[in-house]
Amino acid sequence: MKMLINVPETVVSDALRGLAAAHPELTVDVQNRLVVRRDAPVADKVGVVSGGGSGHEPLHGGYVGMGMLDAACPGEVFTSPVPDQMARATAAVHSGAGVLHIVKNYTGDVLNFKLAAELAEDEGIDVRQVLVDDDVAVTDSTHTAGRRGTGATLFVEKVAGALAEAGAPLDRVAATARKVNECSRSFGVALSACTTPAKGSPTFDLPPGELELGVGIHGEPGRERRGMMTAQEIADVALDAILEDLPPGGPVLLLVNGMGGTPLLELYGFSSHVQRILGQRHVGVARTLVGNYVTSLDMAGASVTLCRADEELLRLWDAPVRTPGLRWGC
Amino acid sequence: MKMLINVPETVVSDALRGLAAAHPELTVDVQNRLVVRRDAPVADKVGVVSGGGSGHEPLHGGYVGMGMLDAACPGEVFTSPVPDQMARATAAVHSGAGVLHIVKNYTGDVLNFKLAAELAEDEGIDVRQVLVDDDVAVTDSTHTAGRRGTGATLFVEKVAGALAEAGAPLDRVAATARKVNECSRSFGVALSACTTPAKGSPTFDLPPGELELGVGIHGEPGRERRGMMTAQEIADVALDAILEDLPPGGPVLLLVNGMGGTPLLELYGFSSHVQRILGQRHVGVARTLVGNYVTSLDMAGASVTLCRADEELLRLWDAPVRTPGLRWGC
Repeated sequence: MKMLINVPETVVSDALRGLAAAHPELTVDVQNRLVVRRDAPVADKVGVVSGGGSGHEPLHGGYVGMGMLDAACPGEVFTSPVPDQMARATAAVHSGAGVLHIVKNYTGDVLNFKLAAELAEDEGIDVRQVLVDDDVAVTDSTHTAGRRGTGATLFVEKVAGALAEAGAPLDRVAATARKVNECSRSFGVALSACTTPAKGSPTFDLPPGELELGVGIHGEPGRERRGMMTAQEIADVALDAILEDLPPGGPVLLLVNGMGGTPLLELYGFSSHVQRILGQRHVGVARTLVGNYVTSLDMAGASVTLCRADEELLRLWDAPVRTPGLRWGC
Repeated sequence: MKMLINVPETVVSDALRGLAAAHPELTVDVQNRLVVRRDAPVADKVGVVSGGGSGHEPLHGGYVGMGMLDAACPGEVFTSPVPDQMARATAAVHSGAGVLHIVKNYTGDVLNFKLAAELAEDEGIDVRQVLVDDDVAVTDSTHTAGRRGTGATLFVEKVAGALAEAGAPLDRVAATARKVNECSRSFGVALSACTTPAKGSPTFDLPPGELELGVGIHGEPGRERRGMMTAQEIADVALDAILEDLPPGGPVLLLVNGMGGTPLLELYGFSSHVQRILGQRHVGVARTLVGNYVTSLDMAGASVTLCRADEELLRLWDAPVRTPGLRWGC
């Protein structure tokens, strides 16, 4: 498998150097693997920190900036960052108002963020945690006890970031972040496996003519292998799985997310089927985002995430955000 | 080759329906294949129109909106739109101040835009054309007499759009667009071929362990096939080719563009090598954009575009833009 890299060992460091050079509004510590808002810590503001394995870009480093994350700590590809990294990130954004950790539900991340929170609490920093576990495909998986955290991470980071930016206190930012997660559900599908730089070959075997329904963002097995389906059939299966489990309520935020290797032309086409089916099922779509936001390296495929959104969530979603991966209103 | 589509015949229409549903600020005519700003024609403003084959998303439909294009006309995948489409787009954005056509240098596009301009002139619409031909890799190619138009299209569309938005007259918008093209150079590399929906298999044959230096955005042959190289070596070759030909001058706008199938993690790493080499060669980088902006479906690979930018160009680059694919300042 050909890659646009020097050697596998420096992939994450090289990417961080590239991020630093392209985005002078961020402070990137390549040595310690931290991406921090240049103006951090922002006085009297709750700090919002996330992190996880690399390979899901723009998640998380690409979502650092005004109105979203204050800091991100990227691990090696598909590998949790270490507690020290997370504790450094926490200290870097701590202004006295406390810090929220946004943690995707993978065993390594959960364990390490727990240790990081203890380290931070030892330093007198008040920490709350929100666990993202929106993937309805499977309960328990290769890297997870319970549901996996996937596309809803974007919603949680955006909404929590907006509320923190507006000056809300730690407990309210944490409660709202939890509400976003509770109101969100995702389902993903893989048309191809992905290839990590270290392995250099596909991480799992997906025969020609088959797809993986309910795949995880590291290529973890989903619900079922099937013969190839049309975009419309895939949208039907994804929305069946999501809507069966989604709390009833108002309109939704819709994320039609590419896994990294699927062209935008296909994603927009897939999105048209998702929107049509939602219309038939009388689910109102308040906002739509189509693109590669929570990726799995070069995996072909897509995921759908819905989040039931009340007026407050929509207002926070629409609030200005300025990050490399998501920007509007400023 | 598995794709997230229904049938090849409806790929472009389905994508346009998805674009319409996701972006209520655009008017999408699926039947006639037009993407137009909802507030077009904007009184007293020069209209800015582009178009070309589909498969390069977000180019061009994703660049319609305030501060960039007024309309785009997408053709079938890798196929020029027809003169009627272009003439309709021109009429839809014509407010009396004239219309600029931004045309990538491919024989079909050039011919059809010429006919469209004649149709529009017959209706009393003043039309100017700027031809984009920034690709230094080859002169004359599969679909082109002269150099191909690639990454600089983004720069031309952004800068011309900003100047038109500021109320400049047609001749000035056209002259500035031409200046941006003259000050821009690109070089692309493919690590894999791309697959069109109609063909369903790779459009060219690139053996494992080889890459194509100087590839075009439809997979047209470049300068040379070579054994696989590191990201750093590729950056060296690309910048050698570009800098040899770039007019001397001030700092540059830098676009490190993904062809569609290369993960953002790799693109940022590649960009770090590009920036380091530019530093060694004393080329100042004023602004950097890293991502999938001018793509070739699922092709793995990247291109580099530099544009020498004076104060005016930088001001126009920084001006607010609100499109699905590029947004800042609003």
